[in-house]
Amino acid sequence: MKRIEKTTPKKDGYRMPAEYEKHSGTYIIWPERPDNWRLGAKPAQKTFVEVASVIGKYEPCTVVVSGWQYANARGMLPDYVKVVEMSNNDSWIRDCGATFLVNDKGGLRAVDWSFNAWGGLVDGLYFPWDKDDMVAQKMCELEGADRYRLDDFVLEGGSIHVDGDGTAMVTSECLLSKGRNPHLSQKEIEQVLKDYLNVEKVLWIPKGIFNDETNGHVDNMCNFVKPGVVVLAWTDDENDPQYSRSKKAYEYLSKEKDAKGRKLEIHKLLIPKKPILITKEESLGVDAVDGTLPRQKGDRMAASYVNYYTGNGFVALPIFGDEHDKLAIKKLQELYPDRVIEPIYAREILLGGGNIHCITQQVPFVKKD
Amino acid sequence: MKRIEKTTPKKDGYRMPAEYEKHSGTYIIWPERPDNWRLGAKPAQKTFVEVASVIGKYEPCTVVVSGWQYANARGMLPDYVKVVEMSNNDSWIRDCGATFLVNDKGGLRAVDWSFNAWGGLVDGLYFPWDKDDMVAQKMCELEGADRYRLDDFVLEGGSIHVDGDGTAMVTSECLLSKGRNPHLSQKEIEQVLKDYLNVEKVLWIPKGIFNDETNGHVDNMCNFVKPGVVVLAWTDDENDPQYSRSKKAYEYLSKEKDAKGRKLEIHKLLIPKKPILITKEESLGVDAVDGTLPRQKGDRMAASYVNYYTGNGFVALPIFGDEHDKLAIKKLQELYPDRVIEPIYAREILLGGGNIHCITQQVPFVKKD
Repeated sequence: MKRIEKTTPKKDGYRMPAEYEKHSGTYIIWPERPDNWRLGAKPAQKTFVEVASVIGKYEPCTVVVSGWQYANARGMLPDYVKVVEMSNNDSWIRDCGATFLVNDKGGLRAVDWSFNAWGGLVDGLYFPWDKDDMVAQKMCELEGADRYRLDDFVLEGGSIHVDGDGTAMVTSECLLSKGRNPHLSQKEIEQVLKDYLNVEKVLWIPKGIFNDETNGHVDNMCNFVKPGVVVLAWTDDENDPQYSRSKKAYEYLSKEKDAKGRKLEIHKLLIPKKPILITKEESLGVDAVDGTLPRQKGDRMAASYVNYYTGNGFVALPIFGDEHDKLAIKKLQELYPDRVIEPIYAREILLGGGNIHCITQQVPFVKKD
Repeated sequence: MKRIEKTTPKKDGYRMPAEYEKHSGTYIIWPERPDNWRLGAKPAQKTFVEVASVIGKYEPCTVVVSGWQYANARGMLPDYVKVVEMSNNDSWIRDCGATFLVNDKGGLRAVDWSFNAWGGLVDGLYFPWDKDDMVAQKMCELEGADRYRLDDFVLEGGSIHVDGDGTAMVTSECLLSKGRNPHLSQKEIEQVLKDYLNVEKVLWIPKGIFNDETNGHVDNMCNFVKPGVVVLAWTDDENDPQYSRSKKAYEYLSKEKDAKGRKLEIHKLLIPKKPILITKEESLGVDAVDGTLPRQKGDRMAASYVNYYTGNGFVALPIFGDEHDKLAIKKLQELYPDRVIEPIYAREILLGGGNIHCITQQVPFVKKD
């Protein structure tokens, strides 16, 4: 497949569809690195199998995996999940994977952003990230999609959401961070998003979830339910460091309109009642490696129900064994009356630094010949 | 995808179609190992690019490649060739790849034979071969085909040909060699072929090409042009060690009939006039590695025009810069009047121990939903 040069998706009539539009499938990367996933990633692998098993019931699911873990992944995953070899540095395909685009003629392309492990040499989470930066290209080959590669623009898929109707949302905390694109102004960054996602409006939420090591990805904080409707991570506890973050986001979104001039309907989704902290045992299960963010006892994880994944006929929702799990399930079912809510106990993914949305990447449906 | 247990393709109504039946595509493995391919495999890579470029003009062509060579392969191959990551020990997908099967309802399955690098610990050509032995399974995942895995039956795809009409051909030299299945009698081996290729008749040609390091694979010696018609590597030079081999094959085939009771029409295809020997320079370009067959100055390579590949509308024919190249092109054009003959200068593939047929593997066409 081809690298497309000297043009943009906007010029070519391609746009990023919303996640809630129909998919042809979902990609996941198999977790393995023992300096991020405790106990040689065995508990995480079990949870990833659960996630892939759920998704595979609703749409084709492909798990990509490094060569030495291939037989293990194939053995643990159900037959209906496809397993394909692919080198990687870690398992966050939302962030390093392709951002697929469609046009109205059945065309499929993708944006292949530069990936630098959430901050590169400034505040990146591991080194090196060379294999992750090739994941998008390899997905494009598998899907038969030509790609727009941006060699000098860093972005992760989890730092953007689109409504499929002209509007994107991001956080300033992430997109203006020093480890991403410090050579560009906010206006210039916004222009790249407009050109490559083909949107007219970008919503700039100030900050994401407290202590989120991605510099506050929007996908842990806020999501489009449909055009004009968003769901926002929330807490009523004024002493929680999350409170001011959610409040500022609410105030910002309340005043903004989307690309089509709609005022936003904002639904609050409570974060877990009890902060989720790494236990001593969990911390001791992680290898210490120079250059990788350590996982220390008592660290507060950036737990949020907003980190769910929307697929064909379902929502895969992380739960934590918290009092608020039930509320989240109920709320999501109200927001998505036509989809099955699939709650998955996801503490092991959270311990790795993200959640279900972070480990999935959709391929939009296009009619093939 | 699934491993199918406790049944056979024959029982399930699956058969191996002939190579000349319609394909949905072709697989090739990128060459890289410096103890088999001279000069770090750079000259071989150039020839593999030529082969993939030719095939890709006629049908979808996928080149699979180990992670560290991905960018190099992608950069050297044309855009219309698909590149997918896959670990491997070397680049002979005819031999380690899946043998695909079809039924008459649009089903696609495969046989996943055990692979032991042409003889395992008896007379195998390199060690280890663990990655090659997983190639067939990974192809099945990519193609969405369930597979019959034979854990205790060693076979390479290049050691069999089928006519798609009930007949297979092999060489006794290879299939009865000590490094394959010494625990089985000829009759038992034949039964496995009948059950897994779904054929009624197996032709046992005594020997293959002289000095062929595969223990005389049939695909370098003889091929079906269509049911009832075969092409046989030949020399008229009674002093050539190939003479008695070809003569015995001719005598055997002259007396045999195929599964449908047809007498065989045998076409002789002269091998290169001048034996092809490794030069000193070529030999010096190959790394010496313990356990890998050395490439020494003056070694006679098993050059044969029969090692061609038949695809949708074309025949990819190896040529050697020999006086007999023209004869081979002419003969093949007569035998395949409806296909374009694509001659490719293939000395570099031959230096690695095989030729165009050995580095290709077809996926038969099936109607998809």
